[in-house]
Amino acid sequence: MPENIKVIAFDADDTLWVNETYFREAEEEFAQLLSKYETKNKIDQELFKTEIKNLIHYGYGVKGFVLSMVECALELSNYKIPQQTIEKILNIGKEMLEKPIELLPGIENVLESLQGKYKLIVATKGDLLDQERKLEKSNLLKYFHHIEVMSDKKEKDYKKLIGHLDIKPEDFLMIGNSLKSDVLPLIAIGASAIHIPFHTTWVHEEVSQKEQDNVEYATLTNINEVLSLI
Amino acid sequence: MPENIKVIAFDADDTLWVNETYFREAEEEFAQLLSKYETKNKIDQELFKTEIKNLIHYGYGVKGFVLSMVECALELSNYKIPQQTIEKILNIGKEMLEKPIELLPGIENVLESLQGKYKLIVATKGDLLDQERKLEKSNLLKYFHHIEVMSDKKEKDYKKLIGHLDIKPEDFLMIGNSLKSDVLPLIAIGASAIHIPFHTTWVHEEVSQKEQDNVEYATLTNINEVLSLI
Repeated sequence: MPENIKVIAFDADDTLWVNETYFREAEEEFAQLLSKYETKNKIDQELFKTEIKNLIHYGYGVKGFVLSMVECALELSNYKIPQQTIEKILNIGKEMLEKPIELLPGIENVLESLQGKYKLIVATKGDLLDQERKLEKSNLLKYFHHIEVMSDKKEKDYKKLIGHLDIKPEDFLMIGNSLKSDVLPLIAIGASAIHIPFHTTWVHEEVSQKEQDNVEYATLTNINEVLSLI
Repeated sequence: MPENIKVIAFDADDTLWVNETYFREAEEEFAQLLSKYETKNKIDQELFKTEIKNLIHYGYGVKGFVLSMVECALELSNYKIPQQTIEKILNIGKEMLEKPIELLPGIENVLESLQGKYKLIVATKGDLLDQERKLEKSNLLKYFHHIEVMSDKKEKDYKKLIGHLDIKPEDFLMIGNSLKSDVLPLIAIGASAIHIPFHTTWVHEEVSQKEQDNVEYATLTNINEVLSLI
C-alpha cells in the first residue's frame, strides 16, 4: 500500500451496508409473480437482459430496476400479466426504497479509526436521492467529508473525481466489493484499491479472469483487515 | 446586486434549456391514453397527486414521473388499462430521456461573457444520469467548473453546497426559473438570486404571494439581461 494515501473512498452498497441481497429478494418475488408464464431461470435471464438494455436510459438504481421489471413482465407474459400484478411490481420497488440499513460488521469501528488520519469519502453509483437517504439512515454521515454519487464508475469517472478532490491518483485509495467498479479502473489510472467481496455479486459486475491478471490489488475477507493494511 | 459575487450557479431545466414543455407534452399523451376512463382535468389532477405522494420515494426526474404515470393509470382505470397501454407509458418515458437539448436563447452568449470573471456552476434537481447526459448534449460543459445534482433545493441543501464551495452565502448568486427552488431559499440564507421565469411552471414549484412578499430579488424576462445587472 503506498505511503502517501490522502483520501480513502468507500463504495456504499455491499461495502458499507447490505444491498444486493435486497435485489436478489426482489428478483425472487418478481419470478414468483411471473411463475405462471415462465421458469425461474428464464425469468431471471430476461430480467437481466432488460436491465442491461435499459442501462443507457435509466442508469443504476432501484427506479430503473422497477421500470425494467414492468417492461419484462409485459413482454414475458405476452401482455397477459394482470394489471394488479403490475401494481405489485411497483410495490416491490417502494419496499426496496424503504428498507432499513443493515451495516456490514466492523464498518463503524474502521471508519472511526481512519477518521482524522485520512479524508474519508463515499463514492457510489445509484439513484441520488436513494443513496443520500441510505447514508442518512446509516448514521455514518459524520465520518465522511464528501459524498459522491456517480452515474458510472469507469476510469474517466474516477479521473474526474480525483481532479475535483485536487489530489493525484497515487493519493487515492478506493475500498469496495466490485472488482469491475471499485478496483480495476482505479489500478488502471494509478490509484490504489482494496477489494472486499460481498457474498453475492450482480452478474453485470463480474469480470473475467483475464481482466484480473497482472492487476495488483489486495483482497480482504473483512473490512476490519483494512486497519492492519494501511 | 452585491459586489463580491464569486460563484454564479445556474439552474438547468428551463433556465439553460427547455424541459417543462416535454413534461407538459408527456402529460398530454398520458391523458390521451386514458381518455376512455376520465376527463383530461381529472387525469391531470390525479397524476399530480400521485407524483407528489411519490416524491418521498422517487424524488425528482423522469424515472419517478414514469413510475407515477403507471401507478396512476392502474388506479384511474380501475385496473382495466390494457397492458399494451402500460408499455406505451414506459415508452413516453424513454422518449423523454432521449429528447434533444434545446438551449434557451442567449445562454451561450451569457456564459461566455461571465466565464473567467466568476466561477460558474450548475445546480440542478433531477436524475443524476439524465442531467449529466443533458449537459453533455448541450455542449455547455466547457463553461462550468462543477455540476451539482441535488436531491432537493431547500435552504439546507444550498447551505451544504455553499459549504462545499468554501465560500460565504454573500459570495453566491443563483439564477433560475423557479421562485420556490432557485430564489426564496437563497434569499433566506443570505445569498443572492435572479429569477427568470419560464413560460410554464410545474404546479409543485409555484409559491403564494405571501411567500414572495418582502423578499428582495431581481426578476428578468431574458437571460441576456443578467449581463447588465452584474
